[in-house]
Amino acid sequence: MLNINERLQKQISFVLELDKMKALYRQTYVLNENRKENDAEHSWHLAVMAFLLAEYSNEPVDVLKVMKMVLIHDVVEIDAGDTYCYDEEGNRSKAEREEKAAQRLFGLLPEDQKKESYDLWREFEENSTAESKFANLLDHIQPLLLNYTKNGISWKEHGIFSDQVRKRNLNSAQASDDIADLIEKIISDAEDQGFLKTR
Amino acid sequence: MLNINERLQKQISFVLELDKMKALYRQTYVLNENRKENDAEHSWHLAVMAFLLAEYSNEPVDVLKVMKMVLIHDVVEIDAGDTYCYDEEGNRSKAEREEKAAQRLFGLLPEDQKKESYDLWREFEENSTAESKFANLLDHIQPLLLNYTKNGISWKEHGIFSDQVRKRNLNSAQASDDIADLIEKIISDAEDQGFLKTR
Repeated sequence: MLNINERLQKQISFVLELDKMKALYRQTYVLNENRKENDAEHSWHLAVMAFLLAEYSNEPVDVLKVMKMVLIHDVVEIDAGDTYCYDEEGNRSKAEREEKAAQRLFGLLPEDQKKESYDLWREFEENSTAESKFANLLDHIQPLLLNYTKNGISWKEHGIFSDQVRKRNLNSAQASDDIADLIEKIISDAEDQGFLKTR
Repeated sequence: MLNINERLQKQISFVLELDKMKALYRQTYVLNENRKENDAEHSWHLAVMAFLLAEYSNEPVDVLKVMKMVLIHDVVEIDAGDTYCYDEEGNRSKAEREEKAAQRLFGLLPEDQKKESYDLWREFEENSTAESKFANLLDHIQPLLLNYTKNGISWKEHGIFSDQVRKRNLNSAQASDDIADLIEKIISDAEDQGFLKTR
């Protein structure tokens, strides 16, 4: 171990632990390779979208806060794993597994940064502030855009119905009318093109 | 093409073009798989480090600006490719290739966002403001940390000497005394452990 002060040591340990995000795969495919996307890539994409699309939030948002939130919103998956959004069984035990993961992972940081990161993650999960609503919207539209652009590959793999996607995006209009409108156009076209099943 | 307004259409086109970053591989290895790191993962890692380590900047920095900068600093590689930092030949033609890439890629965005993104990228490259110095420092220490943690794998692959790494990090102390000190400790220990060659 290098001889550095305890605070910096803790921060570096967390930074290295985060590398595991690069080996945690989601259900969404990347566009330019034949493989699924990992949590690090997904989080980066959301953070860029946060500053490019913040203007569409119905309420003004603190962009820095949205960016921090999306950068770390999936860190708990290092311990708790990814739960596919349409997996009902997995979603029942998700909260408990993720709370435990948050305690261990953010607990690697110095106390003040543990608190800030944990609070940002809780706020994202509770989805009730302007920033967390917008961050959750980005978390929904990013895989939707990739899936739609890749001819619904992940939806087809899991046999997803359009009403499941609509249900998941019910709250989008609370965060942004413009992006909710875009989402509806994508879902509707995905139905027409057979990317999503209808019933 | 979906029937959405031109501004949002441009922003979404850029967001989708960015997906190519997930298929652009660097020389650094990720820690938990046997493969190299891509630009999206690298940029995400830097952005998290930006807010966790900003306190170590010698000059106060606008954290939001540093984060935006690191999130997009490698976007030009979509057209210009990655140039390994110790490749002298490649580095001679780098500036011209990257300028052209920046014009095309940021040019996908609406004019105001093109300007902001281009200016952030230029500022990063010029490395003269507090934010760009700190962003460049993060861009140097992140691969150093990964390489060191993975027993110098990429340095050994390329037969890198410790003086090359020291030369590349000469300006670190301008950005942060604490992190420059950490870098020197890493290089020195990497010499002792034979991760870097000495001469």
